[in-house]
This record gives sequence, structure tokens and C-alpha cells, in this order.
Amino acid sequence: MVTRHEDTAMVVFQPSGRSGKVPKGTTILEAARLLGAGIEALCGGHHICGKCKIRIETGSVRSQGIESRRENAGAWQSGEADHITSEEKAAGYRLGCVAVVEGDLLVTVPEESRPGKQVVSKAARPIPIDQNPAVKTYFLQLSPSSLSDPTGDFERLGRALEATYGLTGLSIDLHAARSLGKVLRKGKWDVTVSVWMEREIIRLRPGKAGPNYGMAFDIGTTTLAGYLCDLDTMEVVATASMMNPQVPYGEDVISRINYCLDNPEGRQQMSTAVVDGLNSLIEQALSEATAHTGGRIRPADIEDVTACGNTCMQHLLVQLDPEPLGSVPFAPVVHSGLNVKGRDLGLQVNPAANVYMLPNIAGFVGGDSVGVILAEQPQHSEDTVLIIDIGTNGELVIGNRQKKVCSACSCATGPALEGAQIEFGMRAATGAIERVTISPDTHTVDYKVVGRDAWLSYSDPGQMQVRGICGSAVLDALAELFKAGIVAGSGAFDPQVEIGRLRDNPETGQKEFVLAWSAETAIGKDVVITQNDIRQIQLAKAAIYTGCKLMLRRMNLQRPDRIKIAGAFGNHIDVHRALVLGMFPDCPTERISSIGNAAGDGCRMALLDRKKRAEAERIARQVEYVELTLMDGFQEHLVDAIHIPHMTDDFPHLKQKSAMRRK
Amino acid sequence: MVTRHEDTAMVVFQPSGRSGKVPKGTTILEAARLLGAGIEALCGGHHICGKCKIRIETGSVRSQGIESRRENAGAWQSGEADHITSEEKAAGYRLGCVAVVEGDLLVTVPEESRPGKQVVSKAARPIPIDQNPAVKTYFLQLSPSSLSDPTGDFERLGRALEATYGLTGLSIDLHAARSLGKVLRKGKWDVTVSVWMEREIIRLRPGKAGPNYGMAFDIGTTTLAGYLCDLDTMEVVATASMMNPQVPYGEDVISRINYCLDNPEGRQQMSTAVVDGLNSLIEQALSEATAHTGGRIRPADIEDVTACGNTCMQHLLVQLDPEPLGSVPFAPVVHSGLNVKGRDLGLQVNPAANVYMLPNIAGFVGGDSVGVILAEQPQHSEDTVLIIDIGTNGELVIGNRQKKVCSACSCATGPALEGAQIEFGMRAATGAIERVTISPDTHTVDYKVVGRDAWLSYSDPGQMQVRGICGSAVLDALAELFKAGIVAGSGAFDPQVEIGRLRDNPETGQKEFVLAWSAETAIGKDVVITQNDIRQIQLAKAAIYTGCKLMLRRMNLQRPDRIKIAGAFGNHIDVHRALVLGMFPDCPTERISSIGNAAGDGCRMALLDRKKRAEAERIARQVEYVELTLMDGFQEHLVDAIHIPHMTDDFPHLKQKSAMRRK
Repeated sequence: MVTRHEDTAMVVFQPSGRSGKVPKGTTILEAARLLGAGIEALCGGHHICGKCKIRIETGSVRSQGIESRRENAGAWQSGEADHITSEEKAAGYRLGCVAVVEGDLLVTVPEESRPGKQVVSKAARPIPIDQNPAVKTYFLQLSPSSLSDPTGDFERLGRALEATYGLTGLSIDLHAARSLGKVLRKGKWDVTVSVWMEREIIRLRPGKAGPNYGMAFDIGTTTLAGYLCDLDTMEVVATASMMNPQVPYGEDVISRINYCLDNPEGRQQMSTAVVDGLNSLIEQALSEATAHTGGRIRPADIEDVTACGNTCMQHLLVQLDPEPLGSVPFAPVVHSGLNVKGRDLGLQVNPAANVYMLPNIAGFVGGDSVGVILAEQPQHSEDTVLIIDIGTNGELVIGNRQKKVCSACSCATGPALEGAQIEFGMRAATGAIERVTISPDTHTVDYKVVGRDAWLSYSDPGQMQVRGICGSAVLDALAELFKAGIVAGSGAFDPQVEIGRLRDNPETGQKEFVLAWSAETAIGKDVVITQNDIRQIQLAKAAIYTGCKLMLRRMNLQRPDRIKIAGAFGNHIDVHRALVLGMFPDCPTERISSIGNAAGDGCRMALLDRKKRAEAERIARQVEYVELTLMDGFQEHLVDAIHIPHMTDDFPHLKQKSAMRRK
Repeated sequence: MVTRHEDTAMVVFQPSGRSGKVPKGTTILEAARLLGAGIEALCGGHHICGKCKIRIETGSVRSQGIESRRENAGAWQSGEADHITSEEKAAGYRLGCVAVVEGDLLVTVPEESRPGKQVVSKAARPIPIDQNPAVKTYFLQLSPSSLSDPTGDFERLGRALEATYGLTGLSIDLHAARSLGKVLRKGKWDVTVSVWMEREIIRLRPGKAGPNYGMAFDIGTTTLAGYLCDLDTMEVVATASMMNPQVPYGEDVISRINYCLDNPEGRQQMSTAVVDGLNSLIEQALSEATAHTGGRIRPADIEDVTACGNTCMQHLLVQLDPEPLGSVPFAPVVHSGLNVKGRDLGLQVNPAANVYMLPNIAGFVGGDSVGVILAEQPQHSEDTVLIIDIGTNGELVIGNRQKKVCSACSCATGPALEGAQIEFGMRAATGAIERVTISPDTHTVDYKVVGRDAWLSYSDPGQMQVRGICGSAVLDALAELFKAGIVAGSGAFDPQVEIGRLRDNPETGQKEFVLAWSAETAIGKDVVITQNDIRQIQLAKAAIYTGCKLMLRRMNLQRPDRIKIAGAFGNHIDVHRALVLGMFPDCPTERISSIGNAAGDGCRMALLDRKKRAEAERIARQVEYVELTLMDGFQEHLVDAIHIPHMTDDFPHLKQKSAMRRK
């Protein structure tokens, strides 16, 4: 499509300096995406989160309607008023998702609207895996082609593979076939053949060739992780992780499904975004591995790929229609594991490499839960294990060797715990408060920010450069506020407490607690936790707790023998504080463990041991999916769980532990 | 790669008016390719054929060395002298493959260097085929997805395909999977499913959908043909044909293999060229079919593709390495039929469509010969059938139901019979002499040109606008010259004959016979047939005859029961004259038939009847390949066959026929 010159406008973003021409009528958020200038948009441009606030320095914008999505002559949109004060309005602040480019613009993206580089911890755990990769290599010494035996190269190779290794009836990938003639002659008829699943020849290398590699991807709603594995030694030779580049299209699964409903190209855009992300991971991993091993590893050396994510992420990766996931009965388009060619997705791996995507259990319990089950094997456990995978969604798995394993999803958990829907919420990026303590006696606040080792109490306030609060700190703060008696069991700020940090916000009419004074921040204002923030966190923890309770009821159990917390968030969480808040069902703290990225581990197992793929398919068929919202008493349980427990009988271990502490 | 402005030059070709910037150092032939200005280059730019003569009007060129391929300071290259006279040289004539762009240029492409639009006749014959296409459609009415049955779309579809049609274990192409969610809901759970080989779901359409189509391609060295077939009615709904766009890279198979040896990108370039050609055929066929049927047929409606060609054409189509075909033992990279995705080749068909390429018998006997055997079934014939497929190569098949079928290739035939290596040779394009008669008594020449119905004797000489001589007319002319006593059985012009049309060329020292005086031509000079032209034709016909004789000897037979002439050239050939020349072994003329494009017919059978694919694989394995050049007495036979037979005992039927004519 050719855009005529008069239909475009020049937009310059500062401080990044990103600039370029965009079609008039583009929103500023979209322009930022097009020009690569980062603007936060947790809600995916739906005028909800208010995180994409920008300031127009010069030039003119108009507004896009919220309900009708039609252009609106008025320069100010009522939806914006929820997020932009009258002073800000006067200073030129607008929402990036509402303001539409009308002519050349200079736009400032304020500090708090810029996405930080998140600190992602998705390291690989050592787990026992049988060596049985889907791609195996075979070395052959062929007899040269001659007039007395002019059999074609492929048939000659097939004959030798059968004679030497008993492999028959193999097909050959087009790209492997293209290299065949040259490779055989270059290696003087010695050749290393990579065969996928004893079915398809996918690569040929002259002579006796070196190692080959595979990549396992864990595609989280917020975070992507990749594990580069040597298919021979089984070692993880490099790990890479980054934010999911789909985040600008929507922070949670539902926002992304809605983005597809609203944009005909949405599915393609988001697929391109995540594939670009995976390609960045490959690049990172290859350069890390090359630095470590000395020898250069190239994309063509990645001969096999596995991938897992929640059902929606898996659908978006391969561009299955995610819309059915957004409405009753929330059925996926495909349950089964899919084998597709990496080249068909645009992955920068060997062009003949296959990608195995783990099967989905249900619309909201996907291949990542299958990966967790592969890695943790609750179906073979004597104890009843409850696995809580806290990512952007909370996914629950419970089971033991006697009973059928059940899985469920409490979708409401993620965004709040990861900082969305929280006034000063942000991801675990530089400047995010990640730990909080509040003295019960003096109400002194101390905290630590991501990117700085020293706590506030050991720092000059101006060094803290606070930008917001991340998930773990939101939980911390609430537990501390509760223990300090500033917040009651209902979650309400105690009106009796009178301290300087607790104040009324005249604009919202809400109470708020100051965690960091403006002098300690990089954004020139106090960073607070509001009454509404506390409500959001209460809802999230109630959703997880309710899910666990209902799953236990389904199993006719009072409590699990063990709790395993999976996911990066689980690594950061303070178990005792989570118990204080009533996030998990009661369990001795020593029987609660963090298992890291178990989904990624399972995905890696499927890469290195092909038997795990068949097992994954069995798991996806056999694990029972529980639709929590349809269970009797779901609403009542949820409402009850909103309360912060006060050492009730529901939590004997917590009581005991607290009692011990008091001694 | 960025080319700096000062490294390019503007080249304008006239009379086409094609122009543009090309990197300095490009040959004019390559520049013409890049800018889409047609220049003939039968030898593929190897400084051999001299067909790419052009005239530099303004601007400067330099020369490229012939042996070393390195740049040469001299402005004139000795190789050019073979093709360009001193007058032409003075007038600015150069060879396009030698002259290198040094600065801005205005170039004239003379009439005789322009490729004409060939008249291609590759119509489809009616042949009996069982209806059993590889892609079949199935209509299903699914139960809607619901909370009580939230099975995923793919699994729901699989369940119904098994229950209704007994199909199990189907996979689904990625592109079909992408449409699944929307299609099922759009059709209100009624769906038409296209399944390939009872193995893979390749397309989904909402409700009860209309017809689906397949395309069979015959990829000749010189000509491409495509047959668009309705997979339900089995009808050929449109036929399209065109020149193979690889021709500029070399007229024959060997030139194209050499082009790959010389150019690292050659294989890719030629694959792109032929795929572009096939896409043009698809476009032609679809618009023709749409015009006929009324309803619009789209590329996505083409759900299956078969293709055949000689081994080299098949290798180049899918980018297998053609180099092994160019040297002993001439082994193909792949014998077996290949299944590849159309999208992997860049074909504009349904993205999930598979392409089945017929298997190769040997390095020079490819899927096209397998197609001929599929269509003609010599292996089931009571009579011994000799099939001669005259395209750019001559491919031979002989057999009957008792004896093993043998195949062979006489590579030398094609280029000469199609006009290459002939002084005024050209393809069967407008202005080509296609029929010649010479009165034995008066030596009066009469001829007909392609594009004009009236013969010379019924025309004003200036209306003939002759540009050259095409294959069939070269044969005609030689037979007529022989019958008129102007050429002896040895092929030499008879020195005793004294007529105005027979003259010595002082430059070459050769005799030549004027077919058309310059007043009758569009190129301002006499069109002649030279002593060397006659030698080339003698070699070509000797190659075919020798091949036939040796194949008969292999079968221990004196003569075949039937001869079938396949290929477009076979449609134009005058059987009696070919017998006069001794091109075919002796056979009653009524038992010699032209069977048209039998390779294309076989390819169409493989499209419409999947059993033919298994049969093709059996044929490719079982048909014996005979390497003619290795047979005892090959050279002697070839030398003997160069002679024009004089009603010898070798040709009793010709003798008898001639005797009959005399009566």
C-alpha cells in the first residue's frame, strides 16, 4: 500500500529520539510501536490501564472515541479523565491510546510510561532426563557413485542408513535434499545425517560432524525463556530470557484475545512479535554459547525445537485463532501437540528443523501446565502434591498416584501480582521496589529497589530512584501493613491509625500509604499503595486460594502434603508472608518449595527425550480440567478468601510457626 | 547490499524502451535480464551461440575475458569475431554476453536478437483416468462446542471424520489449522474438509463448499505447460503454456548445469525463474477458467499439484543440486518422487497444497519419461512400442508386455531441432519459416511463416517478414533439398548444381542455400541454410536414429511394431519427410502416430488418480536405463546414421510408400 506524502506526519519521541513518519490517524501508542519507541500499555491500548500517559510538546492531536472507536471531534475524551488530572491535562498530558496523530508532533514519554528492562530469572534446574532426543545423528561412509552403480544420492543414502542403522522408509526435508549433492561430494562420501523421529532426514553435514543443538522455549504471557541444549551431552549450554514482545498488545491473555477481535491483523502481528522475541533469544543464546565454548554455533546448528506456553500463547505462536478461548466454552482450536516446521513460523533455526509444541489440556490450561506435570510427575507421587504456577495466570495442578490429576486456572491472579491494575505497579525492572519491611512498633518503612543492593536505610534517599512497585513488593507491603496493624483483616486501612504516611487522597477520596517519598523517586512524586491496590491484591490472592481450596475439595482432601510454587514469581515470593496473607492453603512451610520454571523444564525434557512427547499427549488427554468458576460455592469461597486470615484454624501450621517465632 | 550511486549506470534498451540502473561491471545480457528487456542467449551467456548480438548506440562498454572471465582492458574480444563481422563491429555491434556496462548506455536490440513469443501447442488429450485424486473433500456436520463437551476444534473434527468416513490419525497442515476456529463457526459447524492422501487435512471451508482444483505441470527445457483440473469432474478446465523463463540462462540442460557451476546463485535464480513461470501459468489458467465457468476460481482453490520434467528441470524446480547430472556417472540427487509444500517453492496455490514431483529414472531420463510411460503403458502392450519424445532432448522408451521396458536419452537432439546452433535458427515464433517445399524440377522455393496463413507463392514478398527458420522447417528444408538433388546423401551441397540460391559465403568459405531473399525478411538480409546447419541437423537426426537402433538391438528386435512421437515438435513433424531423412527406424507410416504431450498427460493422471503415483514409483525403479554412449558401436552407428538414407533396405516401408507414390 502506498501512503501519499500528505497523509503522513512526522512524530518524534523524546527522550529516546525515535522518530519517523506515520499515517495520520495513527494513535500515539501505535506510532510508538511502529517507530520502536517504548510506551507501556498494560491493557493493550484499551483505554483502561492509563499507563501510556505521554506529553505533547508541540503539534496537534485529536481523540479517538472509546465506545464507538469512531473519530471524535472533541479534543478531550472522558475516559482520559480517569487517568489524567486537570493539572496534567493543562501541561499537555494525554493517553497514548486515545490521542491520534493529526500533524507533525514532538512527544515526551515520561519516566513512568517507559517500559524498564525486566529482571527475569528463568534459569534451568538440573533435572534427570533420559537421552533420547527426537533428532539423532548418524555417521555413514557411502560407496561413491559410479557408472557401474549410478544410484541417486538420496537412494544411496537410504540404502546405507538401512544397512548400517536399520532405518527404513525415511523421507527427506526439502532443504536437506537441496544440500545433498554438494555435501556428499564435499565429504568424499562420508556424511553425518540428522534424522528426526526416525522418520525424516533434516540435515546433512560432510564428514564426521560436530555437535547439534536443540532449543526449548517457554512462552509466558509476560516473559519468554529459551534453553539452548547440546543434543548429545544433554547440557544446557546457554539460557536466555526477555519480556514477551506481545506485552504492548495487552498485559494479559484476555487483552490479547480482545486485540485479535478488534484488529483483523492482530493474530499475525502478535505472532510476528513473539517470533521476533524467540529469534532474539536464539541470538542471545548462540552468542553466549559461542563465548563459552569457543567454537561458533550457528542458527543452522539448532536442529530441533520444543515450545510450551499457556493455550493462548501457543495459539498465537502458530497463529491459531484465539477467539474461541475468549468465550464459553473456552475450547482451544487444537488440543494435541503440533509439529510444524520452524521455517513456517519464521524461526531463525535450521530451515528443516521441526518445532514440537506441547499439547493443551484446556482453553486456559496449556502446554506449560503439561510441561510442569512432565517435570514434577504428580501422577507418580505418593504424597498429594499441589503445584501452583504463578505467572501472569495462576495455574493449579493437584494429584497423587492414586487419584486422577486435576488442573485448573485462576486467570485473575497475574496482572495484579505483576504490577498491572496497581497505581504504581510495574514489572521487576530497575527502580521497582521489590522488598518492603514496616516496623510494627515505629511504622518505619524500609525497602529495596531492583538494580540497587543497598536498602533505603543504608542509602541516601536520593539514590533510591524509585519508579514503582513490583509484584513481590506489593505482597510484602500488604503483609507488613497487616502485621503492623495499619491494614485490618478486611483489607481496609485502619481509620484509628494516625501516621504521616497514611493519608487521604482528595482527588480519589481514597486512603493511601506512602512507601517512598518523592525525594526518593525518579518520577518526582510520592510512590503510594492505595486502598484500591490492596483490593486488587486481595482479589488475586483470593483467586489463588479459592482455586486451591476447590481443587482440594475435588480431591476430597483437607490439605495437600506438599505445595510446589512454580514460575519466576515463585522464586521471589516470601512463603511465610504469602501464608500470612492467606494466598496458599495451610501447609508446613518446610513442605512448601519453589521449583522455578518447571514448565520450561518439562519443555526441555520433551526436547531431549522423545518419549516425553508421547507422555505429554497422554497427560493432556488424561488430566482432568476443572472449570473453577462453575463449581458450587465458587463465588462464596472467593469472597471469604478476600479476608486476610488472622491465624485462624484454617492455618494451624502458620499458627504453630508464629507461636514458635514468638518464643 | 547497498549499491552506491556512483557504482551504477543507466542502461536504456530500444526498441522495447526498458531501462534502469544496473551495477557497473554487469554484462549487457545480464542487464537485459535485470531490466526485463528480452535478448536471446541460447548458450546461456557462454560466448558460444552469438545470438545475443546488440548494437551500442551511445556510451561505452568494456569486454569480459572469455577463458579467464576476468576483466580485460581490450575493447574487443577475439571470441566476438566468430559472430560479428568487421562491418558490424564498425557499426557498434557487440555480443551482449561479452560487453560490460561501464557507464550510461543506449543499446539497440536488433530484430534477430529478440526472443519472439513462441507458438506453443501443448493441449491436453482426452485419456481415460480413474477418479481417485490425492485430495478428496468430505462434508461434515459437527455438534457445536459446549460447556458439557468443550473438546477442541481439531479433535472434534477428527472424531467426526472417524465416525462418518472412517478416517483416523490425520494430521493438519499449519495453514489449515489457522483457519479452523473461524471456519467452523462461520459455517455454524458445517464444514467441508479437504484431505490429502487420507493423511493430512489441508483445507477447511465453511458449509458445503464448491469444487476444488488441481494443477499438473509439464516442465520442459524450452516450454512450460499447465493443466488446471477440476478434481471432482476430472475435467481440464483450462490449459496454459509459455516459454520456460530459464531459457535466458541456457538453451539446453547442459548450459543450465554449467550456469550453476559458474554462478553460486544460479540454482536459486533458475528455480525462481521457473516458479515465476509456473505462477504465470496458474494466473493464465485461472483467468481462462473463470472466463469460461463464470464463477471466480482463486489460487487457494488449487489444492493439489503434480509436476514432471526431465531430471535436470525437476532438480532445478526444487533446487536440488544439478551438478552431479553434469558429470560421470550422471546420477540424480533424488530418484524417488518428492512431496513438497507448494509454499516452500513459492507457488501461488493453496498454501497447504502439496506438490508431487514424479520420480526420475536416471540422470537424463526424468519424471517426464515416467509420465509418458504412465500415459502410454508400453509395459502392457502386446506390440513393441517405441516412443520418441522430442523436446529439447530426445527421450526414448521401448517395450512390450513380455520384455522389460528400456529408456534412454539422446541429449544432442534438441537444440538443433529447435533452432539453436542453426545460423538463422529460431523458435516457432512469429516470422519463423515453418514449412518449406522445393520443386525437384524448377528448384522453386515456397514456404510459410508462423503468424501468416498464406504461403510465399500466394503473397507479396514484402509481406513475409521472415526472421529465421524454426525446427520443423529445418527438417523440411533438408528433406526437400535432398529430394531435389541439391544436397547429396552425405549431406554436402552437390557441387554440380548451379542455381542462384546456392552460393559460396566468402567470409566462412561455406556453401549456403538462400531460403528467403532479404526483400522477404524483417531483418534486412537473406535467410539461408548453411552447410554447417545441415551438419547440425544431420547430427541431431543421427542421434535419434542411433538411439532407436541401439534400443531395438537391446530388445533383440529389427524394428518396432509401432512408433509414437511425443512432444510438441512431434505434432509439427512431417513423418514422411522424417523417414526420408532417416530420423526414425523403418515402420509403416500408418503405424507412426503423434501422441502430443504424453508427459503432461501422465502428470495429469498422477494428479487425478493417486494410484498412478505408486505406479510411477514402480516404473522409475523397474524401467531399465540404457546409457547409449556406453553401448558397443555407438560411435560407428552415429557416424553411419549421419548419412541421409537413399531408400536402402533399412527402410522397406519407405521404399514401398515411395513406389506407391510414383504410381
